[in-house]
Amino acid sequence: MVLNIVMLGSGNVATHLSAALINSGHKIIQVYSRKFKNAKELAEKCNAIPINKVSKLDNDSDLYIIAISDKAIGELVSTIDFTNKNVVHTAGSVSLNIFPKSIVQYGVFYPFQTFSKKRDVQFSDIPICIEANTAKFEEFLISIASQLSGNVQKINSTQRKHIHLTGVFACNFVNHLYYIACNILSKNNIDEKILNPLIRETSAKINELSPFEAQTGPAVRNDKESIKKHLDLLSSSPEYQQIYSLLSDGIYKTH
Amino acid sequence: MVLNIVMLGSGNVATHLSAALINSGHKIIQVYSRKFKNAKELAEKCNAIPINKVSKLDNDSDLYIIAISDKAIGELVSTIDFTNKNVVHTAGSVSLNIFPKSIVQYGVFYPFQTFSKKRDVQFSDIPICIEANTAKFEEFLISIASQLSGNVQKINSTQRKHIHLTGVFACNFVNHLYYIACNILSKNNIDEKILNPLIRETSAKINELSPFEAQTGPAVRNDKESIKKHLDLLSSSPEYQQIYSLLSDGIYKTH
Repeated sequence: MVLNIVMLGSGNVATHLSAALINSGHKIIQVYSRKFKNAKELAEKCNAIPINKVSKLDNDSDLYIIAISDKAIGELVSTIDFTNKNVVHTAGSVSLNIFPKSIVQYGVFYPFQTFSKKRDVQFSDIPICIEANTAKFEEFLISIASQLSGNVQKINSTQRKHIHLTGVFACNFVNHLYYIACNILSKNNIDEKILNPLIRETSAKINELSPFEAQTGPAVRNDKESIKKHLDLLSSSPEYQQIYSLLSDGIYKTH
Repeated sequence: MVLNIVMLGSGNVATHLSAALINSGHKIIQVYSRKFKNAKELAEKCNAIPINKVSKLDNDSDLYIIAISDKAIGELVSTIDFTNKNVVHTAGSVSLNIFPKSIVQYGVFYPFQTFSKKRDVQFSDIPICIEANTAKFEEFLISIASQLSGNVQKINSTQRKHIHLTGVFACNFVNHLYYIACNILSKNNIDEKILNPLIRETSAKINELSPFEAQTGPAVRNDKESIKKHLDLLSSSPEYQQIYSLLSDGIYKTH
């Protein structure tokens, strides 16, 4: 069944999710964004109509997907009458209960991945976390998600909040550590690419070893001399020193 | 040319480096470790003789590789007469100058990777950092390293210290963040495997985007509500809260 879908949002998630839905044969008929320019940019990729007023929303679409920043969801939901529409949001940290109970069918469709507009991503193995207010709508969402990914899971709002939180640790914070490492290298005129095999292997290890088993380096060995040398090397960056100390302590206490 | 090599050490680096050297056609003739059991374990894999006394060291080998903990290198070097032997250490944070100048040929052979005994690793793309006291010995080491990897680089002691430091950020600390994420999931009865696609994508991104461009999540968006929710979820783990706050601040200040 081909669905006519309205995408509310034009950011990273909206962009990649639209592409994946179109890939699965569905149609994005409208893209809504408060900024018309943003709506237009994504709508052009989707062969959809860009709108920047909720009054122009199509009333007969099969699914309305709210893929906007977490903090804006509540307001948007309160300004649109979704009573007899199928509506989902895509946010990890926002409860299902942000939707008023007067809506007949509402849910959450949360792809647990990091999306950047500049990089393509394969949806096929992305965990898609589904929650809905009725069993019937849950089934509907699972069937759509299963067209996009082989990894669809029923996840309630409390679990989803924790999953979102762990994404911050395993992705955003990890990426910031990559940033710091690259920064130290470039300051010392060393090609940042020297890190790539290490970064690749560190992430690949988790397929075979638990992070506990996989740990190596000065902190797990309690090698105080190396730690001291590293803190000295960071003497001009008190913030990096603080991160170094805190994470080294964490590793040492864990092992 | 097939080299007869003595491996001093029996840990992760010694184990993987021995395997790679044997793979390239060389022979490990002795494995030294202070603990005979450890020497024996690696020696059996290498078809080598295990020894736990420096007095039993073969005197005519082509290369002596010291792959022991950083802090033990100085002492070992002072107890063995390497004057007319070819000797290297494999440590990132230890200077070339740990070797006495009376030795004719000494150097550093530092593979920049995380090694765990339980996991095989392909040497072919591992950066191997080479330094030596003479151009001739440097050339000799580069030729051996090039048999193991297509990524051999001349790196001096100062650069190498910084490279080693960045490995702690990009590997050990990253792995600790994986550990924390898995820990939060398992406490909430969620399968830890849900993280794997995100971890894979986060590391794969660096092939296309700089970590600065690749950053996503609440901190870079300055989404204070999500950050507050996350800190509340971590209320029973003050240590995790501290890491969360420090790294979020770091991301926010960077962008």
